[in-house]
Amino acid sequence: MAAAADLDHLRIVLVAARNPLNIGASARAMSNFGCRHLRVVSPYEAGFREARSAVGASAVLAAAEEYKSVPEAVADCTLVVGTTAVRHRDLQHTLRRLEDGARLVRKRLSKGSNRVALLFGSEKFGLSNEAMSHCHWLLNIPTREENISMNLGQAVAVCLYELIRDEKAARQKEKLPLAAAVEVERFTSVLLENLFASGYLSRRRVADAELRIRRLVRRLNLPARDAVIWFGIMRQLLWKMRSGQSATGALDK
Amino acid sequence: MAAAADLDHLRIVLVAARNPLNIGASARAMSNFGCRHLRVVSPYEAGFREARSAVGASAVLAAAEEYKSVPEAVADCTLVVGTTAVRHRDLQHTLRRLEDGARLVRKRLSKGSNRVALLFGSEKFGLSNEAMSHCHWLLNIPTREENISMNLGQAVAVCLYELIRDEKAARQKEKLPLAAAVEVERFTSVLLENLFASGYLSRRRVADAELRIRRLVRRLNLPARDAVIWFGIMRQLLWKMRSGQSATGALDK
Repeated sequence: MAAAADLDHLRIVLVAARNPLNIGASARAMSNFGCRHLRVVSPYEAGFREARSAVGASAVLAAAEEYKSVPEAVADCTLVVGTTAVRHRDLQHTLRRLEDGARLVRKRLSKGSNRVALLFGSEKFGLSNEAMSHCHWLLNIPTREENISMNLGQAVAVCLYELIRDEKAARQKEKLPLAAAVEVERFTSVLLENLFASGYLSRRRVADAELRIRRLVRRLNLPARDAVIWFGIMRQLLWKMRSGQSATGALDK
Repeated sequence: MAAAADLDHLRIVLVAARNPLNIGASARAMSNFGCRHLRVVSPYEAGFREARSAVGASAVLAAAEEYKSVPEAVADCTLVVGTTAVRHRDLQHTLRRLEDGARLVRKRLSKGSNRVALLFGSEKFGLSNEAMSHCHWLLNIPTREENISMNLGQAVAVCLYELIRDEKAARQKEKLPLAAAVEVERFTSVLLENLFASGYLSRRRVADAELRIRRLVRRLNLPARDAVIWFGIMRQLLWKMRSGQSATGALDK
């Protein structure tokens, strides 16, 4: 698997987009995932640069380039990929699922100064056959057969996410550090004291019960910080029970 | 890697969503990726079921369940996962990148009847600390540090896509069948005839040139259907050149 892509050589090309809000939402996703270069071919409305949906992405919209035709918009690219919701378009083009297509796009982007264009068609009709004829191959987001039509901004977000996803980086997760055995055992001891003091366990049949409690505590996989808290809670309960017992004891006597 | 998930046991929980259009867009992404169960906790506006953004997802919206609180909305789930844009939340929770978190969600969904809740907070504030305290761990979409705030509908789409993505299925791409060697050689022959007839190649220094042309043609990796078309084109050109030559010849004589 290729590493996560540097999207600086990627061009997102929106062809005949109808709704300026969708252009803005696409710009927002681009900003989220680190892709700066938006190209717009014959948008339906001129005022897309003011789209309020481009939260945090005004720079992307301001720098967007406008073109009159697809060949002009992709002229400097060595790979031109069209997106389509339709699956069996009589195989005029090779059709790749996003997982596989993104792999090839990443590969191309990783090699020198190759520019790659990723084309999205209009919300209503998708890419025209004319626009598709400028593409090397087509890419398909694996949606459910019963509802293949995605919102434009969501489709752009999903494609960009697939390009930057990184299995390796994901393994370096921020996880709470776990408690060492000595801390776990310290908690186990005070828990057992509580169980004896409360009468939950009887001192007489202790051996097997103690082992079961020890396993019960290990299954908690306590984070280091939490083990300290649990120890404190149990110590407090024990103190209260013992002071309560002696009070009751005092009354009983 | 776990196989693509069956999302029938997944619950998408939108907490305090402000914009009905975003609830509709979330429902649309759910319909795209095959997740039917939407839960809505105290939405800002009541009229979300009529959201026009839910293209093709009216069934998801109609069946959406409304709750007054997070614990009620996740009561029947064995895993509760919150989404957050923030990365270093002082480690109150284990934080996983989407690629890794989705792996665990898929794992859980594949085991019997475990229900998993995936929580999304409000567009403005995300999930509250109170809501997060009901989560087992948090999930983070790997956005760029400079713009971590995603649109709600786009965030839902990206998370669901990661859950259904399937590296294996992606390899079974629909590719144009390639031409067999005999067809490629048939085209090479008529191309060579054209090169001789046009004077591009001279009959005298043929051996090395012929090999170079053969390699040139192999690098085209012609699809079977295209090899036939190219053969036809070249045969036609040859015919025209030869008839043109004799015509010119006739005039010259």
